[in-house]
Amino acid sequence: MEATKIILSEKEIPTRWYNIQPDLPTPLPPLLHPQTKQPTRLPPPLFATASDQQEFSQERFIEIPDEVLDVYKLWRPTPLIRARRLEKALGTPAHIYYKYEGVSPAGSHKLNTAVAQAYYNKMDGVKRLATETGAGQWGSALALGCQFMGLKCKVYMVQVSYHQKPYRRILMETWGAEVVPSPSKDTNTGRAIIAQDPDNPGSLGIAISEAVEDAATHDDTKYSIGSVVNHVLLHQTVIGQEAMIQMEKAGEYPDMIVGCVGGGSNFAGMFLPFIREKLQGKRKTRIICVEPEACPSLTRGLYRFDYGDTAGLAPIVKMYTLGHTFMPPPVHAGGLRYHGMAPIICYLYDRKVVEAVAVHQTPVFEAAVQFARTEGIVSAPEASHAISVVISEALKCKQTGEKKVILLAHSGHGHFDLKAYDEYLTGKLQDFAYPKEKVEEALKHLPEVPA
Amino acid sequence: MEATKIILSEKEIPTRWYNIQPDLPTPLPPLLHPQTKQPTRLPPPLFATASDQQEFSQERFIEIPDEVLDVYKLWRPTPLIRARRLEKALGTPAHIYYKYEGVSPAGSHKLNTAVAQAYYNKMDGVKRLATETGAGQWGSALALGCQFMGLKCKVYMVQVSYHQKPYRRILMETWGAEVVPSPSKDTNTGRAIIAQDPDNPGSLGIAISEAVEDAATHDDTKYSIGSVVNHVLLHQTVIGQEAMIQMEKAGEYPDMIVGCVGGGSNFAGMFLPFIREKLQGKRKTRIICVEPEACPSLTRGLYRFDYGDTAGLAPIVKMYTLGHTFMPPPVHAGGLRYHGMAPIICYLYDRKVVEAVAVHQTPVFEAAVQFARTEGIVSAPEASHAISVVISEALKCKQTGEKKVILLAHSGHGHFDLKAYDEYLTGKLQDFAYPKEKVEEALKHLPEVPA
Repeated sequence: MEATKIILSEKEIPTRWYNIQPDLPTPLPPLLHPQTKQPTRLPPPLFATASDQQEFSQERFIEIPDEVLDVYKLWRPTPLIRARRLEKALGTPAHIYYKYEGVSPAGSHKLNTAVAQAYYNKMDGVKRLATETGAGQWGSALALGCQFMGLKCKVYMVQVSYHQKPYRRILMETWGAEVVPSPSKDTNTGRAIIAQDPDNPGSLGIAISEAVEDAATHDDTKYSIGSVVNHVLLHQTVIGQEAMIQMEKAGEYPDMIVGCVGGGSNFAGMFLPFIREKLQGKRKTRIICVEPEACPSLTRGLYRFDYGDTAGLAPIVKMYTLGHTFMPPPVHAGGLRYHGMAPIICYLYDRKVVEAVAVHQTPVFEAAVQFARTEGIVSAPEASHAISVVISEALKCKQTGEKKVILLAHSGHGHFDLKAYDEYLTGKLQDFAYPKEKVEEALKHLPEVPA
Repeated sequence: MEATKIILSEKEIPTRWYNIQPDLPTPLPPLLHPQTKQPTRLPPPLFATASDQQEFSQERFIEIPDEVLDVYKLWRPTPLIRARRLEKALGTPAHIYYKYEGVSPAGSHKLNTAVAQAYYNKMDGVKRLATETGAGQWGSALALGCQFMGLKCKVYMVQVSYHQKPYRRILMETWGAEVVPSPSKDTNTGRAIIAQDPDNPGSLGIAISEAVEDAATHDDTKYSIGSVVNHVLLHQTVIGQEAMIQMEKAGEYPDMIVGCVGGGSNFAGMFLPFIREKLQGKRKTRIICVEPEACPSLTRGLYRFDYGDTAGLAPIVKMYTLGHTFMPPPVHAGGLRYHGMAPIICYLYDRKVVEAVAVHQTPVFEAAVQFARTEGIVSAPEASHAISVVISEALKCKQTGEKKVILLAHSGHGHFDLKAYDEYLTGKLQDFAYPKEKVEEALKHLPEVPA
């Protein structure tokens, strides 16, 4: 019988993160200060020293601290699985592999950076981290990361999610975090909003502002972020480095790599090590970023300087953006509802090193159910976006007879997203057209920056 | 750095199940027909041919079919993990290892037998399986097992769980099963109960009767069971066989093996291969079965012939029982709420080859939270019963200074049990005293059997 999984030993966990910055043909555009609009570092009261160093580092490889590696060993290396049952169901000659991050205790790739950020903050003498969370993937990863490193953790959870997704809240509390619905009475920002609008359902923008204020007003506290920025993408490169070894053991090299993008950290973590070979001209691998039709930053956004957050408190970065004031429709893939995109991905997309496609959520869940019924795994709505494109590409191979090798970056399980599956199975799932007018309005509010 | 996980390759998945029956000093007591009370095979209209053969087999090793092994490869071999963080938190010299079945797509060990049973039924030309489920662990495993083998699946889910645990229902539906609340209008049994009592909340006993009636009245349908009987325990021996190889690779042999027991299949699957060496006199490993204080079949029950099900339709088996009419209090570990115990475990307990201990659920959740905060994994309430005893034993080692090696059979994750964690964390979790009077009453209703 042929192998299904490519399993690595603990000794094969990468000991270094791969930083693509020195391998880019030109430097990344600068980060701009939200007020002065001048080039800036990461705001020092908010981030760990190492995070700031890594954000701008020109070192190709950065050592993973032993203490972080020790935690990684709880679930890494993650498996690379040949989707033989899916291939058979599709009748495709394509070979489909998926790298599955859902085996982490927090259920997704997010823990890779949560552990690293908690570690570096501990090294700085920080006692407590504050962060925001929407659906709860990032908040739960940071709760566990802090627990492993002995830090306290405060999570501002968007109020509507806090009430609709109690399981995610309980998960964070089980791992020792303090979770409050945002807007909360714990910050000036939150109190001001509640005073004006006691029933405000909250938003990621408000929650970020609360977490940032918390970090700025507590000496023992820093802020932690789960995607978008360079150092987070860096921490995720353990995924792609492992996948390269695993593909080599499988005796294949991917013709295309497919992943979902919200902030972009999971997929970048997968493809950056492969991109290195592509930039060197050794490979022509297609890299396909998949985003929701309802929030299509790459496929419909503009490559401009914009605020990273809704409130305009975070640094200004050059990225494909739908405008920082754009509020995406409520698709189930909460992790893909971001107006912008990781600057590194945008830089590569602008240079056509990576491509992008936008999909509706109904075909996404159709694909997710087919994946669940063949491979067993019930996938997060985010990962299911990528699955739907993998299936489309595999069906194209069926038509052309091409034996392409497709590598899927599978970000995590959907155990806390079953309500969305229920909506799909009962025919109640709704699609959202590309909100053209809202985007056009939001794009009028990009910050003006010096040329 | 020292290793945390012992990972096996796919080639090390056992290719045979281990059947302990030929290695027992005397034969197991017979199965008795529920009406005639005479020795019987498994009821032929209900079970696959192979299930009946395996139930009484005297072959020591039974080949695992290739098609079953192919499915096992999706998640097996499961990891054996050294709980270094837990050890450190406890300050114990003991070495704690856990064999983690929660990596299966269905989230527990149940899939090991679900896949095998679906396969054998397919070989018999059966098109559809019917079963019951309480909290939903078994129903979801069988739903997926049937999906893998191209069979239809009908699950009668205890009505109160159907409404309280919608995620488990959606999971089964995602994997293609038809799920109805029991009592249902789909069977005579269900209709009769609804006619008398339209708001009947259902019970596992009723659900079993409905599933059995479904199988008996549909030519294309058979019945499938998730624990207790010999062939189910057999299928679970992949767990213990893998663990033996993994412990050997770790260079250690367990001084004690600890697991939770409801019907007993997960823990027996772990310990039976080790018991073989114990029966041969090669080892003195302690085998500790952990059960809830609220449903203490081994520690408080009698070793008698009793019905396997509440309604008295299933065969009569000799087991430690609290009486088949006993309704256990609603502890969160739904999988441990069974009045009896696997006959093989009872046989070994009667001969003092294995021992047993009963625990309350508050210390169980205290242990579960400590495990989650050190090892990351949020455990099912069932598995957490075993964790609590592992922690007690490790703390005894701390007192005595003994470096004992403890092996924990970890049956699965608790992603769908977070409400119970919430109750614990908010101080609302209730303990249930051993229901002595109810048990004494139920023990008056054991069936009379020929001497």
